[in-house]
Parts: sequence; C-alpha cells; structure tokens
Amino acid sequence: MKNLDQENKRQTGEQMYKLAKTLFPIARSITGAGARKTLQLIKRKIPIKISEVPTGTKVFDWNIPKEWNIWDAYIKNSKGQKILDFKKSNLHILNYSIPVNRKIGLTELKKHLHTLPDHPDWIPYLTSYYKEDWGFCLSHNQYKKLKNEIYQVFIDSELENGNLTYGELYLRGKSRDEVLISTYICHPSLANDNLSGIILTAFLAARLSRQARTYYSYRFLFIPETIGAIAWLSLNEEKSKNIKHGLTVTCVGDSGQPTYKKSRQGDAPIDKAVEKVLAESGQPYKIISFSPADGSDERQFSSPGFNFAVGSLMRTPYSRYAEYHTSADNLSFIGPAYLADSLDKYLKTIFILENNMKYANLNPKGEPQLGRRGLYRILGSQKKITLNEEAIFWVLNFSDSKNDLLDISLRSGLKFEDVKNAAYALLEKDLLAKI
Amino acid sequence: MKNLDQENKRQTGEQMYKLAKTLFPIARSITGAGARKTLQLIKRKIPIKISEVPTGTKVFDWNIPKEWNIWDAYIKNSKGQKILDFKKSNLHILNYSIPVNRKIGLTELKKHLHTLPDHPDWIPYLTSYYKEDWGFCLSHNQYKKLKNEIYQVFIDSELENGNLTYGELYLRGKSRDEVLISTYICHPSLANDNLSGIILTAFLAARLSRQARTYYSYRFLFIPETIGAIAWLSLNEEKSKNIKHGLTVTCVGDSGQPTYKKSRQGDAPIDKAVEKVLAESGQPYKIISFSPADGSDERQFSSPGFNFAVGSLMRTPYSRYAEYHTSADNLSFIGPAYLADSLDKYLKTIFILENNMKYANLNPKGEPQLGRRGLYRILGSQKKITLNEEAIFWVLNFSDSKNDLLDISLRSGLKFEDVKNAAYALLEKDLLAKI
Amino acid sequence: MKNLDQENKRQTGEQMYKLAKTLFPIARSITGAGARKTLQLIKRKIPIKISEVPTGTKVFDWNIPKEWNIWDAYIKNSKGQKILDFKKSNLHILNYSIPVNRKIGLTELKKHLHTLPDHPDWIPYLTSYYKEDWGFCLSHNQYKKLKNEIYQVFIDSELENGNLTYGELYLRGKSRDEVLISTYICHPSLANDNLSGIILTAFLAARLSRQARTYYSYRFLFIPETIGAIAWLSLNEEKSKNIKHGLTVTCVGDSGQPTYKKSRQGDAPIDKAVEKVLAESGQPYKIISFSPADGSDERQFSSPGFNFAVGSLMRTPYSRYAEYHTSADNLSFIGPAYLADSLDKYLKTIFILENNMKYANLNPKGEPQLGRRGLYRILGSQKKITLNEEAIFWVLNFSDSKNDLLDISLRSGLKFEDVKNAAYALLEKDLLAKI
Repeated sequence: MKNLDQENKRQTGEQMYKLAKTLFPIARSITGAGARKTLQLIKRKIPIKISEVPTGTKVFDWNIPKEWNIWDAYIKNSKGQKILDFKKSNLHILNYSIPVNRKIGLTELKKHLHTLPDHPDWIPYLTSYYKEDWGFCLSHNQYKKLKNEIYQVFIDSELENGNLTYGELYLRGKSRDEVLISTYICHPSLANDNLSGIILTAFLAARLSRQARTYYSYRFLFIPETIGAIAWLSLNEEKSKNIKHGLTVTCVGDSGQPTYKKSRQGDAPIDKAVEKVLAESGQPYKIISFSPADGSDERQFSSPGFNFAVGSLMRTPYSRYAEYHTSADNLSFIGPAYLADSLDKYLKTIFILENNMKYANLNPKGEPQLGRRGLYRILGSQKKITLNEEAIFWVLNFSDSKNDLLDISLRSGLKFEDVKNAAYALLEKDLLAKI
Repeated sequence: MKNLDQENKRQTGEQMYKLAKTLFPIARSITGAGARKTLQLIKRKIPIKISEVPTGTKVFDWNIPKEWNIWDAYIKNSKGQKILDFKKSNLHILNYSIPVNRKIGLTELKKHLHTLPDHPDWIPYLTSYYKEDWGFCLSHNQYKKLKNEIYQVFIDSELENGNLTYGELYLRGKSRDEVLISTYICHPSLANDNLSGIILTAFLAARLSRQARTYYSYRFLFIPETIGAIAWLSLNEEKSKNIKHGLTVTCVGDSGQPTYKKSRQGDAPIDKAVEKVLAESGQPYKIISFSPADGSDERQFSSPGFNFAVGSLMRTPYSRYAEYHTSADNLSFIGPAYLADSLDKYLKTIFILENNMKYANLNPKGEPQLGRRGLYRILGSQKKITLNEEAIFWVLNFSDSKNDLLDISLRSGLKFEDVKNAAYALLEKDLLAKI
Repeated sequence: MKNLDQENKRQTGEQMYKLAKTLFPIARSITGAGARKTLQLIKRKIPIKISEVPTGTKVFDWNIPKEWNIWDAYIKNSKGQKILDFKKSNLHILNYSIPVNRKIGLTELKKHLHTLPDHPDWIPYLTSYYKEDWGFCLSHNQYKKLKNEIYQVFIDSELENGNLTYGELYLRGKSRDEVLISTYICHPSLANDNLSGIILTAFLAARLSRQARTYYSYRFLFIPETIGAIAWLSLNEEKSKNIKHGLTVTCVGDSGQPTYKKSRQGDAPIDKAVEKVLAESGQPYKIISFSPADGSDERQFSSPGFNFAVGSLMRTPYSRYAEYHTSADNLSFIGPAYLADSLDKYLKTIFILENNMKYANLNPKGEPQLGRRGLYRILGSQKKITLNEEAIFWVLNFSDSKNDLLDISLRSGLKFEDVKNAAYALLEKDLLAKI
C-alpha cells in the first residue's frame, strides 16, 4: 500500500491512461446510460455495488431529477449537411437538453448556441440540469461562419422518470472508522475534470482491495457531483458517522503542481497527513484554504450538519486552468506520469493514516539504555547520530500519550516513515506500547 | 447609517469644518466656562445632557479639582506695551494658572515662561491641573528677544470650588448592550487634538439620532480627559456594565493615515470590525497595539477593574506628529475631507457592529438547492460564480452557531456588506434563522 | 546577584579562566579518579556534597557501570621510542579502555586506532563506556607516518567495581520550588565541552551562596553526562518534583553567539526569561527548538516521565563547531570574556526568575492619581513620558492576576528591570499587592 516504486509507477501510469482512453468517449451526465456504462466498466476492475435512486426521491432539500438519456443530436444546414454532430463530440450538446426536432432560422438558433469567444477553437461544456432547455455548444470560429439560412436542429434525447445511479465500494478494516474517497462520474468527455478522478479512485481501490486488512475501513464513492453526494449522505446518514478522514478526487491527471485544498477544520489529521506527503515529496506544491464556494463534493461532506474532515488532493484545481470545462480538457491534457504520481501521493497519505498510531514510552523516566538493545552505536564519538537513532529519541521523548507519530514527524521534521520505523524498532524491544 | 456617499461626504466635511471654526477660539480646560460653552454649542446640534460634578467629589482614587476660569492675561514691558496677550492665543497661558498681578524682573519672569526651542515659532500647550502654579507659554523666538527690564504680569483667573462639566447623549437601541463613543473637551485652541474628536462625535451622534432604531444602544461622552472619564465611570459604574464595544475619538482631522489602536483584548469584535473597515477602504492604514502608557481615555475604560473593549480610531496619533500640543495644531492642520473620511469610517464600523449577527443554517446537511430559489444561476458553466453566489455559500457553510457575519467576512475575505446581503437573501428564503 | 558590571566582569572572567587552566589537564571520565579530583577542586570554592553510587546500582533502565581508572598509556615503536603518550594528551586513550600490554603488528594495531581524516592535525575524543574495548586516538598526520613494524601497546588502566561520583550543592531559598542548574564533569581535556560548563556552574553557585536568601531554592549538579543525570533522578525522584525551572550548562566559553535551546514545553517561564535576557543584551543570539536527539542532560530532565522545564543556555552548541570532541577544543578555544559574558547572562536570567512576581493593582478602576504620589510629572506637557512613568502604567494596567512581571515586560517591550522597578515603586505607595 505504501507507495509505487519507479518501475511500478511507470507501468501503473500506462494502465491508468489506458483506462482513461476507454472511458473518455462515453456521454456521461448526472443520470442515465453514460454514468451507468462507466460504472459497469469500473466494476470489471473493482467489485463496486451499483445503486439506483428513483426520480423524485427526496434527498434533504433536493429531489432526484428525471433521468436523462441521449442517443443522437445534430444541426443540419439548409443543404442537409450536418454542420454539428453530437457523435463527434458529446460536448456539443447542452447536457440535459430535452428532445427537439425543428427547422429554425439563424436568429432563433443562436439563442440556443453557446461558445467561448476568448478561446475560439474550443467547445464549452454546459449543463441545464434543473431547468428544461435545449442547446448546442460549439467553437466560436464555427459559430462565426454560420449563415443566415434555415437549420434543422435534432436532439434525440429523453428526460423521463428513471434513476440516479452511483457506485460504491466498501472495504472493511479492523476499525469501523472510515476513510472516505469520493469522486464524481457525471462529466462527459472531459479528461482531467473528472475522468482522472474516476481512474485514480478505481486504481486506489483496486490496490487497497489486494492489501492485507487495513486498520481503517475504506469507502469509495463514484457519484454524480453535488446531487450524488447529497443523495448518498441522505440515504446513508447513519453510516456516514463513521467517516473520520476523507478526500475528494478531482483534477489529478494534468501536469500542474500538486495542490491540496484543506478540510473545513484546516488542521485535521487528513490535512497534516497530506501536507506531510507533499512536504516530503521534494516537489513544489500548493496548499489552499477550504472554501465552500469553490470545489467539489467536499462542500457537501463539509456542510455544517456533517462537518467531516474532507480535503481534496488535486493537481491544477478546476477553474484555475483555462481548459477547464472545455473540449481542450482532453486526453492530451492529462498524462500517465501525472496520474501515477497523484496515485502515489494518495497511497502515501493512506500509509500515514494507517500507521499514525499513538504509543506510550514504557521507560518514561530518563532515556532507556539503547546501546545494550542494539539501538544505539557503541562507540561514543563526534560523529553525527544516525537518522534511525535520531528518530528513536524523538519517538521515545514524545510518546507521552499526547502525540501520535504524525505529530512527532511534524515536530521533528523527520520523515514519517523514519519515525514509524523507529516506533516499530522500539516496539520490538518492548520499549513502547500501543495506546 | 451605513456610509457617506461622495457628495454627502464633501458637504458633511464642510459642515464639520465650519463647526470646528466656531469652537476653535474657546479657551477650554478640564473645568470652567470654556468647556461649558463648548457643550452649549454642541447641544444646539444634538440633545446632550450636561452634568456638573462639584469640586471635591471623590471619584475612585481622585477628587474633582477646583473649577478654573480665566478672563484675561498678559505681560507688559516697562513701557506698558503688551508683549504677550492671552486674547491673541489662549495657549499663551499655562492652563490652570492662578491669578497674578505683579511687577517682576526678567530673571524671575523666566522661571514662569515655557517655550519650544526645537520649534522656535510655535507656542507650546502646557497645564498644571494638580499643582497651583502660574506661567506663560510663548514662541522661542519671542523669548529670545526679551530684554532685562521690569515686566508686569497679569492673570485675571479664578481657581475656586465649582464644578466639572460634561455632556452625554444616550440613544436607546433594541438591546441594552451599549456602544460607547467617547471624546474629550478639555483642550483649548488645538484643532486635531481634540477639536476634531468633538466635531466627529457630535456629527456621528446627530446621524445616529436620525436613524431608525438601532440594535445597540449608543452612549456619547463629551468629557474632560482622564478626570472626566474617571468621574463618569465612578458615578455610572452600574450603567457602564452595558458597554460591549467602544471607541475613543481623537486626532481625526489631519491628513495622515487612518490608525487604529487596538483594545486591551486585541481581538475583540470592535477590533475586528475596525480592521475590516480599514482593510476594505483600499487606503493605507496602520494598526497599533494597545498601550496603557500612551493614549486617551481608552486607558481608563480599559483599566483592569473595567477591561472594556475600547479601541481608538484616529488618523495620526497624538505624540506622533510634531505639531501635537502646540499652536501649530491649528485649523490649517485639519481639513474637511479628513474629518468626513474619519466620520465615514466610524459609520462603517457601526454598520458592521449593527449587522454582525449570528445565524443558523436551516438546511445544514448538504447545500440547499439554491437554483429553484433564484439564488444560483441556472446554466452550469465554466464561468466564475458571482460574488453573490460566493457569499451565499460562505454564509450557508459557516452559519453553524459559532461564526458571526464578521467572522465569515474575515475568513472568506469577502466584503462585510456582501456577506450581510447574502445573509439577508437567505433569510428571505427561509434558509437561515437568526440565533 | 543581578549582573556583573564591566570591571567585575573582566576580573571574574580572569578568575574563571584561571580555574579552567587548573582543571584542564585532569583525565576525567564518567567514573574514577579524574571526576573525583575535579569535584575536590570545585569543593575548595563551593561546599558541594560529593556522593558515590556503587557499581551495579540499578538506576531506572540502567546500571551504574564499573569504575574506570587510568594511570598511563603509550605506544612504543620497535626501537622502544614512545610514539604516542597518554601523559601528553589524555585524549590519546579511548576513554574506558581496558588494560593492555602487548606487542602487535601494524595491521592489528590499526584496528584500535582512531583518527580524523578531515582534520589531520587534531586528535579525536572517543569513548567506549558500555562495551569493553581498548584503543588509541591520534592525529591523522601521525597515523599516516606509522611504519609496518612491531609496536608495544601499553594501557595501565583498571575497570573494576567501584563508584560513580557526583557533586551537588543545594541552596535553600524562601520557597521549596527549585531552580536546577546542571553540568557534566565527565569529559577529559576538552575546554568548551565541558570545562566551561563546570567553571560557570561553580562561579554561579559561589555567587548565589554569597547572596541574601533567594526566593527559589537552587540545586547545582556536577554529574557525569547521561548516566549521572539518570542516576540522580533515580536516587532523588521525590526531591526532583520541586524543580520548576532548569538550565543545563555546556559550551559556554567560546567566542560564538549566545544560543538558547528551549525547553520541551517551548514557552515555559525559563524560556521567556532567557529569551528576554538575550533580547535585552543587544547582542546577536540564536534560539533553537528543543530536540531530544541532540543535547545534554536536558534530555533526561525532559524525558516524558519528568517533563521538567529545562533549557540550555550556551554559546556555540556541541556538534555545531568543528573542534567539538577533538584536541582543538582546548584552552585557546575559550576565553575569559566569553566565560564572564555567559555567567552574566545566567545571573540576569536568575534575576528575572527571582523577581518575576505577580501583583494585583489595588486601584483597578481607572488610573490612580500618580501625580500626588510623586510618580508622575506635575507639568502636563508635550514631552514624552519617562520610561519610569511608562513602566508604571503598564504594571498598573496588567497587574490583573493574570500577568506576571515577565509577561508585562514581554508585552510592553520594556526592560524587565524597568518593569520590576516600577512595581516596587507602586508597592511602596500601596498601589500594588503581591499575589
């Protein structure tokens, strides 16, 4: 579980990217066949349970919306030529568009067209989940070429009572205390936001499934953003009380710096753990404060009625890169090495959470004699003490029932793993006891 | 109450400066006709209650001193020419000088003369409240010209049992909790210190009197410095317990940077409110720590037996400008725009205090669905959310019974007014309740 | 007790250095004649009690080791010439070497030789307390010249049951609460580490012995490092509970910047006191965090079973100077002025501890009238208030049962002594009472 060595990292990155290529073309939305098909493909890799929540179900302040499905959509010009085709890019359709089959003039058409004048080659991604509407998205360059003629607009979609679909994998650990790893599955062909999150979560879950039993229980959620998180919380309120630490997984495949958005608390163990992983990486990184106004489902998990300690470990956050929610967030925007590097940081974070125990020094009065236990050099000299010896002294002195190993590693500036190894060496010599 | 718009600011500044010109010539002291006349003129503007405390009244560790009045004072040379005349500047007289009418030589005279060698054109301002003495203040240049001859010194003053006079205006709000606004009226012809404070306090009180009923009750004090504050506290000890926030008003008319001296607590709501106002102003400003050794009556209100949260919002503080306590602190040292700008900051601070409520999110589990309530855009897009939407998310997430709106504005970095408007919008939709 | 004036400082420095010269040549170790002789010489200056702890005594997790004594040691080459002689430098012998008298070849000899290739002229200092071994230390230049011949190695030492010896001086103050001053006596001819510590501790104790009765009781320990501290704690566990503040004394004679290693708590009164002394010195200085992995006996006193507030006020810390634990840490590495300057800082720290009382303002409501008590200038003027007046206002305002004088001096930025003098002036006028 600990981390990916170099070779493993390269291979894993390739496998992650391969799965991304498979899932990329699917026309996902917050409900419907796209999400369902995505979950079926994930299920080939890890044994998720797929749940369906019927349209109209009351989930806190919300109601599960109608299920949306789409098979085809296009605009034809007066010559009958398809000038815009959903099959070429599922971003062309305003997500949740109702069925349409009409002939209309350019002026009328334009009311339903969306472009990005600042990025004239890109197609924007837009949705209209909660107001019935239809529309097309296209590049601004294409938009400018449209002539004043009669167009046929055709959207073969369905917006009917149905279900919201989500996937869940629960791995029971020694403790009922849970680590929540949540990602969203509702975006169509957008690679970083958030195919990368789906891929990382699936690979992380697969790896934890193959592990010996963990200390914590782990819950992996593959849900539509916002409504899915609210639905899950509403339907699993009792269960949710076990969540002790959490991360939402989004934007983990691009080349940008690792960025951690802290939990609402700001100094929860998950915050300290991720920050320690980032500090130890030697790479540049960013820490940003919690905001309820910007972000993903940590907003729901951190709503004041729950207030779970859920952060988000990303690379470049949504809305801080221009390609966000456009056709430029495609498979070339993400890369195998970045996916694997992000996965590695999640694994290292979990390694810290799993090993972050609190111990009691069983010889708390003065230092124990380490030399006769083989834990300290025999020859007193002017040489610097070793890293192991240093870690041993720190663990002994601060294993006072107040500090856990993460606290000790943060205070000493030593790597978490060195501190943990020192604790294990001391445990073996009966100098420590688990609290 | 909120603030002064641009035009209003210009007009108000002119009116403030006009009142300053009226009050400037009066020969004020800690007791006597000058203070009394000043209060009478203030009373034309706002309905203050004027109180008299008899000489000898015990007020905590102090006794109310004798009342001092002065009508004339001069020095004549041997030719009978007035070389120094109280009627030209009331700073010429050592404040609280006893009556004198004597002929004396230069050597003897010099024992009673006070000058400022570093600023040879300025007349210093000096007092001798608690030791009977007499003296004259003059420019060092004039002093150097004095010849060795016989002078007539004449001081037509009176130091007898009488009263200490102060003014007070109490505006009853919805709550008995009070905001104290205190200024001192004991300085003669000195403009920034502290005619500016008297003017600002009077205008602030006038404006609040015209408002709809406020949440807090407001108490405005026009008192002689130190002895007046001690007298008021001693005579109103029970009442004083309602003081929740306070500001002393001094040095608010000069061109310097707004400067806030924090309360003794350092992180009281009044401190956060003023600091927020200053931060939002976009102007440079200074925050200084509380000191009991330098300052005005916040020292008395913050004495350990009271420990009220009283700060002081000034421009250039006393003793940080060379003109302080000299004839150079005159009407040209202050200006209408600075007076109005200071008043504006007091109004904005009060706006924050008045609106700084604590609310409870009535849908604390997950976000409520804002879209159907018209509080969130319908079309999901890559566009940045609006300021209103941002503020709404912050208010919802942090209205958890711990944070008030000021806390939320500080944590989010949003303007207090935006946060307040978001709260009002949510209140209207029954998504918040006042705690 | 307060501090050393300039002349006194020069003289005291000379006296300290003279004692250092006397003690330098002694071949000390953690047990045996060297330590005993050192303590006898200290006893001529201050009435320490010398204790002996028998070999084998169980002290917490440790046992008192055998006693080691050495009279002579050398290496002779095949011509019978002494090429290395313990009598020339006691660092030549691996400390705790067992007796040897053998003829051996170069290859065999080299297994027992220790050098410092990076500093080819210096002899390293090495020990083997807890594993029976023998060896010689020499300069790397000498080592390189050794020829392939037969050598006679001779060590006239003894490692037998005996005692561990330590010295202790207890000065009873008004309170049983103790200040612990601890230094270690186990190093042979090494000047800064730690002859300087022995000298400073002896002079400090001598000076405190001559004082009027102190508030705190003071305990001075002259012990072998680590095992001595553990032995003392084990044999005096009940007594040790009186320790309220402590300092370990090491590396106080070199020319480097004063450096303070904070206590485990990091913000204990001893930390604030030393940091105040350093800040007031006007000299550059360093503050370093507590580490249990590097340092002296503060590690034992701060073990979690005791957790005493013990810091260490040094100049250049052990292991931060190249000469550490080598023959270059000799009498020319330390100097009279540095010894005296360090002593002065210890005295000033103790001055703060002794005078750091908490007072109650007996006139807590408003300021008392200072003028009539001669504590404030009579003539109100534009002049800055004096330092005394400033300190008086700070002491009055913050003598509220929460703050002690050290807190007040830290918050005001005033010198501790000025704050203390203000408190005494107020006490005299019955404006304060000791809490």
